[in-house]
Amino acid sequence: MEYPPLAELVQGKWPQDVLDRAKELQEHIGSIGAYSHSKGVPFIRKSVAKFIEERDGFPSDPEDIFLTAGASAGVSLILNTLITPNVTGVLIPIPQYPLYTATLAQYSGVALPYHLSEPNGWSTSLEEIETAVAKAEKEGIVPRALVVINPGNPTGAILDKKTMAEVVRLCEKHSLVLLADEVYQANLHRPDTHPFHSFKQVVRELQSPVPLFSFHSISKGVKGECGRRGGYFECTNISDEVRALLYKMASVTLCPPVSGQIALDCLVRPPRPGQPSYEQYKKETDTIHAALRHRTQLMAQRLNSLPGVSCVDSPGALYLYPKIELPDKAIEEAQRQGKSPDTLYALELLEETGICVVPGSGFGQKDGEHHYRLTCLCPGVEEYVSALENFHKKFVAKYGGL
Amino acid sequence: MEYPPLAELVQGKWPQDVLDRAKELQEHIGSIGAYSHSKGVPFIRKSVAKFIEERDGFPSDPEDIFLTAGASAGVSLILNTLITPNVTGVLIPIPQYPLYTATLAQYSGVALPYHLSEPNGWSTSLEEIETAVAKAEKEGIVPRALVVINPGNPTGAILDKKTMAEVVRLCEKHSLVLLADEVYQANLHRPDTHPFHSFKQVVRELQSPVPLFSFHSISKGVKGECGRRGGYFECTNISDEVRALLYKMASVTLCPPVSGQIALDCLVRPPRPGQPSYEQYKKETDTIHAALRHRTQLMAQRLNSLPGVSCVDSPGALYLYPKIELPDKAIEEAQRQGKSPDTLYALELLEETGICVVPGSGFGQKDGEHHYRLTCLCPGVEEYVSALENFHKKFVAKYGGL
Repeated sequence: MEYPPLAELVQGKWPQDVLDRAKELQEHIGSIGAYSHSKGVPFIRKSVAKFIEERDGFPSDPEDIFLTAGASAGVSLILNTLITPNVTGVLIPIPQYPLYTATLAQYSGVALPYHLSEPNGWSTSLEEIETAVAKAEKEGIVPRALVVINPGNPTGAILDKKTMAEVVRLCEKHSLVLLADEVYQANLHRPDTHPFHSFKQVVRELQSPVPLFSFHSISKGVKGECGRRGGYFECTNISDEVRALLYKMASVTLCPPVSGQIALDCLVRPPRPGQPSYEQYKKETDTIHAALRHRTQLMAQRLNSLPGVSCVDSPGALYLYPKIELPDKAIEEAQRQGKSPDTLYALELLEETGICVVPGSGFGQKDGEHHYRLTCLCPGVEEYVSALENFHKKFVAKYGGL
Repeated sequence: MEYPPLAELVQGKWPQDVLDRAKELQEHIGSIGAYSHSKGVPFIRKSVAKFIEERDGFPSDPEDIFLTAGASAGVSLILNTLITPNVTGVLIPIPQYPLYTATLAQYSGVALPYHLSEPNGWSTSLEEIETAVAKAEKEGIVPRALVVINPGNPTGAILDKKTMAEVVRLCEKHSLVLLADEVYQANLHRPDTHPFHSFKQVVRELQSPVPLFSFHSISKGVKGECGRRGGYFECTNISDEVRALLYKMASVTLCPPVSGQIALDCLVRPPRPGQPSYEQYKKETDTIHAALRHRTQLMAQRLNSLPGVSCVDSPGALYLYPKIELPDKAIEEAQRQGKSPDTLYALELLEETGICVVPGSGFGQKDGEHHYRLTCLCPGVEEYVSALENFHKKFVAKYGGL
C-alpha cells in the first residue's frame, strides 16, 4: 500500500502562506532530520537579521547570528568562552533567573551579584553594579561580563533607555562584555509607557565599542514553543577571531535542533497583513497579550491589598515577584524544618491550593526578605487569585499573625 | 475560515499503527511545544528501558535513563560532572571522534590518549590503556574515566566480549568510570562474526561495580535523524546522589528537544511484525543495511588494491579509515603550505573530485602516519570509488611517486 505524503494531504486545506512557507523552508533546509550548519540554517539566520534590523533601525549581519537550542544553550556557550576557572567574575542581577548561577557553577566562574531596587520597581542601579565591581576587584576576581535580563525574570521590570545608556558606558569603563538576555522582549503589558529597547540599538546609537551578546528565544512571547528548543544570539562588536572560536565551539554539539530553528523562523517572520493566515494570527496574538496583561495587573492589584504583601506591578515578562512579610512563628517553624521561610510558604501553598510558585530564595533576595515568583500564564485568574488570598490569610493566622 | 487539524487529515490515510503511536505519544506528552521533564518524557524513558532490557537480558530502570539532545549533549554533561579543571584525566582512544578532545578542552580536563591497534583491525589494547594510566599518574594527572567508542568512530572496529570484560576489570583496578559510546550499535555489517554487545550487559554479567554511562543516539543507525537532536544515556552503578546531581545539571538546560525524544521513541520501539507499517519498515531498514554493508566492503576492497593504501574492512559504524603512504615531495609541499600532509591530500581530493573526507589528523594517528576518514553513506559507490582511485594515482604521480 502507498501512503500519501503530508504535503499532498494539507494542500488546499491549510492557508496558502503557511504552505508556501513550508515549501520555502524545505527548499532551504532539505530534510528536518539532517544536521544543519552548526550556526543554524543560513536562510533562517538571514530572517533573524532582517527581524533585528526592522526592530532596531540598525544593520544586522547574518554572520553575527548563532541559532541555539533555546537561549540557555547560547548563554552556556558564551559563559564557557568567557570564563577562566576560579578567576573570572560575571555580574548578575539579584533576583535573577537561576540559569546564570547554575551555569557559572558549571564552568567554575564567580557570580558577582548586584541588587535590583525593589522600591523603584526593580530598577537597575548603576551604583549597585559599581559596588559589586569594586568588591570583586578587592577580592582578586576579574569582572569580565555583565548580565542584564530585560524585561526581567523574575521581576518583569523593563530598563528605560537612559539607564541602558549608562549601563553601556559602565561596561566601557570597566571593559565588561555585556550579556543582554532579552527573551521577554515581546511580553510588554504597557508598551506606551514601558517600551522595550534592545541593547543592540543602544550600543549602536551611542556608537559604543562594548562587546555585546544579545539572546532571544522561541520559548517566551505568545508562542512559547519551549519544548522545541530554539533561540539565537547576536554578536555585536565581537572580533572575527572570537566569532571563529564560538563557531568552533558550537560545532562540538553539531547543530541546534532543526525543528526549533523552523519555529524561530516563524517567530521572526510572522504572517504579514494581507496574507491568508494573518487575521487568525493577529487575533490569537492579541488575545493572548490581552489575557497576560489582564492577569498580571489583576493579580498585582489583589496581592497589594493583602496585609504584609507588596508587589511591583510588572510592565513586562510573564511573572510577578511579590514580597511577603511572614509571622515570626512561621520563620521559626521553617528553621526547625531546615527550610527557608519562603520555601515553607510555597510548600504549604502547594499542599493547600495546588498552586505552584517558586520561593524567592531560588532567585536571590536581600537577607531577611521573603518573596515568591508567580507566573501569569494560568487561565481562571479570579479563582486562582482568590485561592492565593485565602491561603495567605490562613497561613498568617496559623502562625500567630504579623 | 476553519482549518482542519492534522490528525483529521491523516486519518485513514496513514498506517493505523503510526496513527495509534502518535495518539499515544500525544496523550503522554501533551504538546510538542511544551517543556518536558528535564530527564525526558517518563513514557519514553520507559520505552528506552524496555529496549535495553530486550537487548541485554538484564533489568533497566527508567529512572537511570536521561534523554539528551543527541549523544554529544550527554557526553558533555557527564564529562562536566567528572572533571576537576586541570587535574582530571580522561582516557580516550586514538583515533577518536573529536567530540571528546573538544569537550575535554571546554571543561579544562586532560585527554589521556591510548592507541588502538591498526594491525589487529583497530582493536582495543589493554596494554596501551595501562601505559596511558601509568604515564598520567607520573605526570600528576588523576585518571578518572575511560572512553570506549564501540563500534568505533572513525575505525568501525567492534570490541569482542573477552576484551570488554578485560576493560571492565581494568576500570575496577584503577577506579575508572566507564563511558561507553555505543551510538553505532545498529550499524553492523557482519553481525554473525562481529556482533555488538553492550557494556551494560558485560558489567552485569561480571556483576561488576564499575560505574558506567552508556550513550545512544537517533543520529546513526539507519534512521539518522540527527537534525532532531535526540539520544539518551543510561546510568549503571551510579549512586542516587550522583544521579540527583546529574538531574539538577540537566535541568539547567530545561529539557531535551521534544521532537528528538519522539524520534527516540520510534528508534527504541520500532514497528513489530503484524503491524500495518511493519513490512515497509522492514524493507527500508534491510535495504539501507545491505547498501551500507555493500559500500563499505567494496570500498575497503578497492582501497586495499591501491599502491600505498591499506584499509581495515570495518565490521561496523559508517566509516572506513584507510592508511595512506604519501610521497616525500607531498610531505614537503604540505610543510611548505603549513598543513598536515593528510590535509593537503584531502583538500586536493576535494578540489579534483568533489569528494569530502576528513584528514586523520582530526582524529589522531601515530607520528608519521597518514589516514583519512571516508563515510560509506554515499550512493553511487562505483563511481565514487573510481574517482578516489584515479585521484590517488594522479596524486602519487604528481608528487614523484612512492
